[in-house]
Parts: sequence; structure tokens; C-alpha cells
Amino acid sequence: MSLLNETIESIIPVDKEAAAQARARLEQLTMPYWALGRLLDLAEQLAGITGTTHPNVDKRIVLVMAGDHGVVKEGVSAFPQEVTVQMVLNFLKGGAGINALARTARADLAVMDVGVAGEIPDVVVDSPEVIRFYSKKIARGTANMAIGPAMTMEQAVQSIEAGISITIGLNDYDVFGTGEMGIGNTTPSSAIVSLITGEPPEKVTGRGTGICDETLDLKIKVIAKSIAVNRPDPTDAMDVLMKIGGFEIGAIAGVILGAASLRKPVIIDGLISTAGALIAYGLSPLTADYMIAGHRSMEQGHKAALAHLKKEPLLDLDFRLGEGTGAALAMTLVEAAVRVMIEMATFSEAAVSTAD
Amino acid sequence: MSLLNETIESIIPVDKEAAAQARARLEQLTMPYWALGRLLDLAEQLAGITGTTHPNVDKRIVLVMAGDHGVVKEGVSAFPQEVTVQMVLNFLKGGAGINALARTARADLAVMDVGVAGEIPDVVVDSPEVIRFYSKKIARGTANMAIGPAMTMEQAVQSIEAGISITIGLNDYDVFGTGEMGIGNTTPSSAIVSLITGEPPEKVTGRGTGICDETLDLKIKVIAKSIAVNRPDPTDAMDVLMKIGGFEIGAIAGVILGAASLRKPVIIDGLISTAGALIAYGLSPLTADYMIAGHRSMEQGHKAALAHLKKEPLLDLDFRLGEGTGAALAMTLVEAAVRVMIEMATFSEAAVSTAD
Repeated sequence: MSLLNETIESIIPVDKEAAAQARARLEQLTMPYWALGRLLDLAEQLAGITGTTHPNVDKRIVLVMAGDHGVVKEGVSAFPQEVTVQMVLNFLKGGAGINALARTARADLAVMDVGVAGEIPDVVVDSPEVIRFYSKKIARGTANMAIGPAMTMEQAVQSIEAGISITIGLNDYDVFGTGEMGIGNTTPSSAIVSLITGEPPEKVTGRGTGICDETLDLKIKVIAKSIAVNRPDPTDAMDVLMKIGGFEIGAIAGVILGAASLRKPVIIDGLISTAGALIAYGLSPLTADYMIAGHRSMEQGHKAALAHLKKEPLLDLDFRLGEGTGAALAMTLVEAAVRVMIEMATFSEAAVSTAD
Repeated sequence: MSLLNETIESIIPVDKEAAAQARARLEQLTMPYWALGRLLDLAEQLAGITGTTHPNVDKRIVLVMAGDHGVVKEGVSAFPQEVTVQMVLNFLKGGAGINALARTARADLAVMDVGVAGEIPDVVVDSPEVIRFYSKKIARGTANMAIGPAMTMEQAVQSIEAGISITIGLNDYDVFGTGEMGIGNTTPSSAIVSLITGEPPEKVTGRGTGICDETLDLKIKVIAKSIAVNRPDPTDAMDVLMKIGGFEIGAIAGVILGAASLRKPVIIDGLISTAGALIAYGLSPLTADYMIAGHRSMEQGHKAALAHLKKEPLLDLDFRLGEGTGAALAMTLVEAAVRVMIEMATFSEAAVSTAD
């Protein structure tokens, strides 16, 4: 059996009993009923995911998947394709947004080339935190989805399995976050969101790195054309990924499948990560319960994508950067939720009177 | 000159030049324009507050002010008054919500009795983090504001000066957060918000620790009566504090004045802290620029109070606990903002191509 099928079959439902035990304790903690709101929901979810009311969440890592996109030939992005390689180097040298936010969250970082168009030169990493680099290049960018499938079915499987492998290999971590880099990748992501949620492209296509009105019009047309040319089956996640996806989007789906198979929480970042989450969800609906929506991106399609997964994001700070920045920042909320569940005293433990 | 007047006169406007320097650097960092949104706004604000683009934010402390309220005799709270003492003990023993969230934020904790009705017994604190206790009891709770002023003018000054003193004494800290404990304190807080914002009591009065519909009706009537009986002058913050305030609310105003005089950021928590912020703002409008709104509370009056201060909260997680929990959690966003400003590379430093 392939790694992909094996992983999908190994995913089990979250532990409802552990979640119920968590809720019972959370309800007795010294505060008015459910007065830490979303943090308590999160604690309950974490207990369900890990099967314990005392989950470990100290070891955290953000997995940044990088890939390029043939569709940039259509002129859909404000930045040139070379920026993908340049930003991967920036991650490895510790100077990008995700480095600053991973440090804030006391999280390590892993960067994987699953399909960058250029070569990533060797870098000597001089950074206080752990930054790992993995090379699993499937091809030098996807094919142009506006004229045919973005990749072959074999490549689609490879991209997901790359994400699964890296995650399983990092199984000593407690919490995973998804991130990505790839000039042009809001285009396939919006295409996936449009197709799977049924929203028209103009409703779920945003400005990515900051394109003008004219380029936005073009981007919407390119997305509509890509869907029309390839006719992906919205109920077949592999078909969607192959025809209008990206290597890093497949890899993100793999990270989510891997985390769910390990019964570990995985924090989803913005639009591209959530497009990956839609693919993972299509392959195994059980994965949704292992996902935590880190933040709401300013990218227009993110809302529809999260709604499809029935996820309410934790943060809403007008981010539109990707890289895993929103996922990293939300890791501190995961720590907070677990500290509340484990460290707070109950009314009886602290001898505090209850409400009349 | 009194400590209060001296402190008010020492507050200067934030440093617009440092803020502009911060903005200039933030705009060159390796990301699409302003792509970390609210975090970049925050970094700019922090530069203005501290007068440097490299502010220190490592040493953080949450200041929890505790006091009781004569108005509880009217039956406005779901919990008995003894809970104030019990919860102060819970803070000192490390078992409350604020303890868990201060640990998450790597923040110390200081608890001050400015007017708790009972005695706080000596406690041996067995906690990994620093928890300080200060006794500056002004009285055993305020008088019942439904039949007359909550306190004397001398007590009002004392309460603010208690907050100023503690903050000035902790001037080796870089970031302050406000918090409070006091059964019944959403009642004076909603009264202050109603009076100062001009919103009617029913629009800004919430369920506090979780009162039923009937008690909520009563609470609204008690607030309206307290305002009618005392006729505080909404443009005179001292008059408002004296007639319909609380000792911990005055102390919070003092913390804010103290932090502003030190040119340090102060993170405001929920409804009660923001009522204190309205008092501080009335005494010195310059304080607003030193305030950071940590989160949006579920308490109904919080929105109007924040709008009056022109503050947009950072977090929105359905909290309604107080204690400084929302302020503590937002401290990690302060760290994130400063890391972004200091640690991220610019396009030219990282040799990343810019947009076409």
C-alpha cells in the first residue's frame, strides 16, 4: 500500500472521551462559566486530538513548503518568480517574517523545496533557533494550469507524500504549523477554493502580494480559464490537486494528513495553507478535527475556505503574508489553552466560593 | 505638588519621529506592503512610545488591582463578596487564569490590595514565576454608590496614586499590563462607561460573572440610580471616579498614568481596565497613545469604551474574565511586533527582488 493510502487509513476520529474529560475539568476552574471562551474550546479540542487532558505542546515546528507555479507566465503576480528562491534563502538565514514569529512562538522551522524553479544554494545558518532544510524537488515548478493540468497524478501523489514523510520524520514535535512560499500560489489556491466551495472566482480571488485592479481582473479570468480547461472533479481531491494545484499545496495537505495520523494538532495558516487543508479534508474528512485555524487572512478566498471546513480562526490581525506567520503566532494560544487546562485550580482546590 | 499632578505634568506626547523611522524600516522589510497588518501598526506605536526603533519588551508584568464594592449590597453580582479575597489568594498561589496566561507571556505578576473588604492572609508563594504582593488598602470596599458617592475625593486621589507608585517602583519593567479583581466591579465600570460615552446604561451593561436576566435588569437600574443620585460631571474624571468608581479602577488609571510618564507601553485588559483607562484619559488625553487594547471582552460596555479611546483591540477570543488575562495574552503580540521590526531583513539586506 502506498504511503498516502496507508496514512489516510491510519487516521482515526479524535478522542471524544478525553475531550469530555477536559470539558468537565475546564467547567470547574476558578472563573465564571467558560470565561476564557475560545481558549477553552481550544483546550477541549487539544484533549480530543491527543487523547489526554495533559497534552504536551512544548515542542513546536512550522513547516514551510516551497514551490513555483507555471501559471505565473500569465502575469498573475506582482513579484518575479526568482523571489521564491530568494525568500527560501531568507528563511534559512533567519531574516523573514516567519523567522521572527517562530521565535516569538518558541517554534523551530523546517523549510522544504518541493518544486522551486531555481536551485537553493547551500547556506550556513547562523541563527539561535533550529532551522532545517529538506530538498524534495518534484519539478522546477508546476506546468501552466491555464493551458493544461498543473502536474501529473504521480507528481500529485509525490507532493502529498513529501509532506507526510517530513511530518512523520518530525514526530518528536508536539504541534505542527503549516506555511508556504511560492510566487503565484494564491492563483491555484483561489482556484481550488472556488472549485471546492462553489463560489465564483471573483468572490474568492484576492490581491496576493499586492496586484493592481487590472492584474486582479486578469487573475480572475486565468482562474476561470484554468477551471474550464481542466474540468477538475470537485469531489475528487487528487484530481483537483493535479489539475489546478501546486506542489507546496499538495505537501501542505500531506503535513495535515501526517499530523492527523500522529494524533497531533496542526495549525493552518492563510489562504494557501487552507487550500491544502481542503485537499487533505477531501482525502480524509477526519482531518478537520485535527486542524486549528490560526488566523483569518486578508486574502478574499480565505473566509469561504474556512467556512467549508467549519473553522473559526483564532487571530484576525490583517495578515496577508503566508509563510506560516499566522500559524506560528497562534501557537502561543495553544500553549495558553493547555496551561489553563493543566495549571488553573478548580473552585474546590482553591477554596473559592461558587456563584449563588 | 502631589504625586498625581506631578505625574500628569510629566507625560509628554509620543515620539513621532521614532514612529516615522519605524514605519520607514517596516515598509522595506521582506514582505508585501504592510503584510503583517496590525503587528506593524503595533511596532510603529511601540517605537513612538519608547522613542526608539529597538524597544526592549522582554521584561513584562501584569499589575492586578483588587478592591471591593459597596454596591454589591444591591444584589448586582452572581458571586459573594468573599470571592475577592479568595481569588487574590488564588493569584498569589499561582492557580488563577491570569497565572496561566502570564506564564504563557513570560510575564511576572504583581497583585495589589487597594480596597479589599477582608484581610489577605500571608501566603507562601510556591510558583516558578515572580508574584509580588502589595498592601495599600484604602478602605474595606467602597461605599454603596446607589445611595451616595463611592468614595471621598481624598480616597480617589489615594487610589490613583497607589497605581502610580507601584508602576514607578517597577520601572525596570518594559511592558505593563492592567488587571483587576473585585466582585461587583462591572457595575461601577459600566456606570463610568455610560456616563463618559453618553450611552444609556442598558447599552453598556453586561452579565459580569454571569447574572440572570432579572439581575441584569436590576443592575441596569442600580447604575441609572447611581448616576442620578450622584450627578457626576462627565468631563471631570476625578468627580466620576469619586462618585461612581472603585479603588481598583482608580489604581488602574494610576498604572496607566505611571506607564505613560515612564514612556512605557501599557496593555489594557477588558471592561474594568478600560473604565480605568477612561479615567486616565480624562486626566491626561496624552495617555491614549501609550495604551494598547489587548482584547475585546464579551462584556457589553467594552466596545463603547474602546471606541471612545479610539482603540481597536488586538485579540477577540470571547474572554469575559478580567484579571488582566487579555492583556497578558496580548503581550506575546508585543514581542512579535518588536521581533518583526528588529529581526526581519529588508529587501536590500536579503537581496530579494521587489515588486514589478
